[in-house]
Amino acid sequence: MSAPAIASAALKSRVRRTSLYNKIANPDDLIKLFPNGSYIGWSGFTGVGYPKMIPTMLADHVEKNNLQGKLKYSLFVGASSGAETENRWAALDMIERRSPHQVGKSIAKGINEGRIEFFDKHLSMFPADLVYGFYTKDRPKPKLDVVIVEATAITETGGIIPGASVGATPELIQMADKIIVEVNTSMPSFEGLHDITMMDLPPNRKPYLIMAPEDRIGTNYIPVDSEKIVAIVESNYQDQTQPNNPADAGSKAIAGHLIEFLEHEVKHGRLPENLLPIQSGIGNIANAVIGGLAESNFKDLRVWTEVLQDTFLDLFDSGKLDFATATSIRFSPDGFKRFYDNWDHYFDKLLLRAQQVSNSPEIIRRLGVIGMNTPVEVDIYAHANSTNVMGSRMLNGIGGSADFLRNSKYSIMHTPSTRPSKIDPHGVSCIVPMATHVDQTEHDLDVVVTEQGLADVRGLSPKERSRVIVNKCAHPEYRAILEDYIAKAEFECTKRGWLHEPHLLWQSFDMHKALDQEGSMKKLKGWK
Amino acid sequence: MSAPAIASAALKSRVRRTSLYNKIANPDDLIKLFPNGSYIGWSGFTGVGYPKMIPTMLADHVEKNNLQGKLKYSLFVGASSGAETENRWAALDMIERRSPHQVGKSIAKGINEGRIEFFDKHLSMFPADLVYGFYTKDRPKPKLDVVIVEATAITETGGIIPGASVGATPELIQMADKIIVEVNTSMPSFEGLHDITMMDLPPNRKPYLIMAPEDRIGTNYIPVDSEKIVAIVESNYQDQTQPNNPADAGSKAIAGHLIEFLEHEVKHGRLPENLLPIQSGIGNIANAVIGGLAESNFKDLRVWTEVLQDTFLDLFDSGKLDFATATSIRFSPDGFKRFYDNWDHYFDKLLLRAQQVSNSPEIIRRLGVIGMNTPVEVDIYAHANSTNVMGSRMLNGIGGSADFLRNSKYSIMHTPSTRPSKIDPHGVSCIVPMATHVDQTEHDLDVVVTEQGLADVRGLSPKERSRVIVNKCAHPEYRAILEDYIAKAEFECTKRGWLHEPHLLWQSFDMHKALDQEGSMKKLKGWK
Repeated sequence: MSAPAIASAALKSRVRRTSLYNKIANPDDLIKLFPNGSYIGWSGFTGVGYPKMIPTMLADHVEKNNLQGKLKYSLFVGASSGAETENRWAALDMIERRSPHQVGKSIAKGINEGRIEFFDKHLSMFPADLVYGFYTKDRPKPKLDVVIVEATAITETGGIIPGASVGATPELIQMADKIIVEVNTSMPSFEGLHDITMMDLPPNRKPYLIMAPEDRIGTNYIPVDSEKIVAIVESNYQDQTQPNNPADAGSKAIAGHLIEFLEHEVKHGRLPENLLPIQSGIGNIANAVIGGLAESNFKDLRVWTEVLQDTFLDLFDSGKLDFATATSIRFSPDGFKRFYDNWDHYFDKLLLRAQQVSNSPEIIRRLGVIGMNTPVEVDIYAHANSTNVMGSRMLNGIGGSADFLRNSKYSIMHTPSTRPSKIDPHGVSCIVPMATHVDQTEHDLDVVVTEQGLADVRGLSPKERSRVIVNKCAHPEYRAILEDYIAKAEFECTKRGWLHEPHLLWQSFDMHKALDQEGSMKKLKGWK
Repeated sequence: MSAPAIASAALKSRVRRTSLYNKIANPDDLIKLFPNGSYIGWSGFTGVGYPKMIPTMLADHVEKNNLQGKLKYSLFVGASSGAETENRWAALDMIERRSPHQVGKSIAKGINEGRIEFFDKHLSMFPADLVYGFYTKDRPKPKLDVVIVEATAITETGGIIPGASVGATPELIQMADKIIVEVNTSMPSFEGLHDITMMDLPPNRKPYLIMAPEDRIGTNYIPVDSEKIVAIVESNYQDQTQPNNPADAGSKAIAGHLIEFLEHEVKHGRLPENLLPIQSGIGNIANAVIGGLAESNFKDLRVWTEVLQDTFLDLFDSGKLDFATATSIRFSPDGFKRFYDNWDHYFDKLLLRAQQVSNSPEIIRRLGVIGMNTPVEVDIYAHANSTNVMGSRMLNGIGGSADFLRNSKYSIMHTPSTRPSKIDPHGVSCIVPMATHVDQTEHDLDVVVTEQGLADVRGLSPKERSRVIVNKCAHPEYRAILEDYIAKAEFECTKRGWLHEPHLLWQSFDMHKALDQEGSMKKLKGWK
C-alpha cells in the first residue's frame, strides 16, 4: 500500500463538497476495486473528458505483473477514449467486451482478430439501453461495478462538473454500483459550459423542451449520490488529442459543391438565409466544409452537432457562427490552448450536453438539422456503409451517423470518390454497386457528394438514383464499370420482373473481390 | 357536361359550412382539373379513408376513351389506398410516379416492370419532406396540383373531419394548390376520433407534448383554407377492405414466444406489469400476437401504433386494453360493422393522429414502445429486409417499420422461419447469411423471433448474435448450412483480420441463388 493520499491545494479548491475530502485516494490503492471480469464504465467521448489516472494505473499493474489476458473487463464508454488508456488496455489484452464506439489501432486489432466482443449502437440509444438494463441483464446485480468519471470540479452538493465532454456519463453514473471521480486540475473548471439531463425511464419520460441550439433544459452539473463515490483521485494531465487532418484539394472540392447546394436551397426558399443548425462529423472533409462556411456568405449560423473540432473556433472567429452545442469539444492541443486562452470569448457561445440529447432523434428532427457524415462507401441506390470494410472489418462503429442521417432535414453523405489501395492511388471506389454493410438506408439519404460532384436523390426512384449517383459522384475511372452494372442489372431484372432496384445479386460484390484478390477494384473487367 | 349537382340531404347535413354548398359538384365535371402529368395527392392510409368517386371517375374516363398511358399522374398518398382506385389506376397505366407505400398486384407489377417510378420513405418522414418541398422541387410551382380528401363531415369553420385514417392528409392539404373534398355519407361521422396537428417548419417546430397514448395536442378537424376547395363531391360507399388473415399454428407459436419474453422482462423489472405501449404491424403474425395478449395475464394495456386491425377490437372486448391510438383503423368489413354497431363502447378509447405523429421517432422513443414487425428476411447478424425480395423486387415499401424499430425500447422482428417456394413448402429460409436488402440494421434490432424460438440479441457482438439467431430462430432444415456459413466465414475472415462480422462476401447470397436457379434454398450443397 502506498503512502496516504495527499490532497493538493489545487484539488481541494476544485472539490467544494468538503465531506468528500476523506475519499481522496492514491490510484495504487484502488486495484482491489477491479477484479477480473468487472463491468467498468468510463466518462469520455471522442478522446476527451476520459479518466486518465486509474486506467493508467491498472495498465501499469497488468504490465508490471504480466497479467495480460488475466485481468479483463467489459468496458462501456460513451464513445472513444484516449489512446493511452483504451488502446493501451487493448494492447495489454485487458478488454473482454466493448461498446459502443472505439478508436485505436490495438483495439481495432483486438476486435478484428476476435479477441474483443464489440457491439456498436447508435450513440443516442446506447445510454438508454444501458439504463434499461439491457447490457447488464445477465449479471447477478444488473449494475456496472465501477464507473470512473473525470471531473473538472465537484459542487457543494456533490455534483460533477465534467470536462470537455458529457457523453454517456450521466447514464453510466445512474447505472454505477461504485463511482471513482478523477478531478483534473491541469485544465480549467468547465463549470457553466454544460447542460445536463438525466435519463428518465418510460412511461415517465418527458419531452426535451429544446427549440434552438442555445436552449438550456438541465443543470450545469451531473447530480451524484455521494455515498456511491468510493474514491476521489487527482488527475494531472490534459486530454491527449491529436492535431487535426488538414483539408486537401478533394475535401475542398466537396465543400465547394455543398456550399453551392446550400445556396441553391436558400434561393429556392427551402432553407432560411442563415440555414438551419449544422451537424458535421470528424475528419478532413468535415474540416473543409466548416472552413468553407467560414469563407462563405452565410452568417448568423448555429450548430447542433456531436463533436466540435478546431475549425469551429475559426468559424466563431469569422463572426459567422452565433452558437454551437455538442456533447464534446475535441480540439487539438493547439485548439485547446486557443480555447483556454480565449475562454471568455467562447464561453457563452457553447454548450455541452449528454449524447442522448445531442444525438436525440427528437431534437434533430425538430430543429431540421443539416447532417453531414463520411461513410466507408455508398452504393448506387444510396445505401451507405459507415462501419465495416468489406462488410466484416470494423473501423470505429456507427457512432452518431445514423442518429443524424435518419432524422436530419438534409441527410448528406460526403466521401472522396476513391481511396487508395496498396497498389493503386484510386484502387478503391467509394461508389459501389451494393454496399457490403448497410448502416444508412436508401430511405435515409438525400444527398451524396464527392469531389466529382453532388447527387441530389430527393424524390427519386432507385433507378433514377443510380444514374445521378454514378454520373455526379463516381470517379471517371469507375463510371463505365458502374454504368455497365446498371445496364446488365436492369437487363437481368427485366427478365425476372424485379426492376424496382435492379441488382446482379451474385456479382454485386465483384468490385470488392477484385480489390481483395488483385489489389484494385479497377482490375474487374466486367460483369460476366 | 352532366346535369347540375344535386346536394342530397345527407350531404348537406355533413357540410356544416353552408357557404360551401355552391361548390358541390358531379365528379364527371371535374375531369378538366386533371391534365396529364398532374401531381395528385389523396387522403388515405392502409386502404381506408381514401377518396373513391374522383379516382373511379378518372379510371372510367381513361378506360372508356382508351387513354391508357396517356393520362398519367404522380400520385402521393400517406400509405396504400383502396384497390379499386390505386390498383385500378396502375392497371390502366395512369401512374407515372408513386410514393411512399402501396399495396396491390397491378401497382406492384407496374413498379417491378419499371413503368412506375416508386420511392419509399419512412412514413413519419414522407409528410415532412413533402412540406419541405423536396418532392415538388423541380416543378414550376412547388405544389401538388390537386389533393382529393375524403371527409365524413365539414365543420362550421370549413375544417375537415376525416374518416378511418388521418395519414398524410394534413400535409397533403398544406401542399395543395386545389382541394376536392369527397364527403362520405355511407359511414358515420368520425367527429371526435381525431387529434390533428399540422406541420410546422424548422426553425419553428415545437415539441409534441404527448406523454401517453391518450394525450391530445391538436384539433379534431384538419383546418383548411376554404378558398382552396374547388369542389365537394358526395361519396356513397364504404372503405373496401378485405377480411383479415387468420392466425395459424406458426404465428401462434411466435406469439407464445413473445408473450413469454415479455413476462420474463416484467419479472426482471425491465418492464412495468402493464407493459409499455404496444406497436403491432399488419398480417397474421400481428393478429396472433394481439390475440395472444387477449388471452394472457397482462392487463391495463395501451397501444401506440400505426394501424389497428380487427384483433384490437377483441383486445378491447377482453377488457385488457385501456386505450389505443394509430393513424388508421383498417378493420375488415365485419370489423367495421362491429365498430359502428358499438360506437359508444369504443369511441373514448381510440384516437387517430397524423402519420407524422403516430410514427414520430420523438414520441415512440419517449413512450418506450414495444415495436413488432414482420420482415422479408433477417440475417445472422440481425439486419432485416423489409422491402425488396431478392434485393430487387419491391413488395409494399418500408412503411413505418423503421420509424418503430429504430426508436422502440424493444425492437422486435417476427417472421416464420421459412416460406414456401414453388417447389418446396420450406424452400425459402427467412434466416439468411446476409440480407439482400437492408432496411433495419443490426444497430436497430433487439429481438428476432420465429415459430422455432426467440433470439435476444441485446448487448451481443455480431459473432455472438449469429449463433443465437441460427440456434433459436432458423428452421431445423437450414441450421446446418447456416452454421457451416458461420464456420467458414470465421475461418476465412480470421486469415484476413476481418473477424468482427465475418462474411463469405462472394458467396453471401448463394442460398438466394439456389432458390432462383433451382427453386429452393435447400438445393445449396455448401459454401465451396
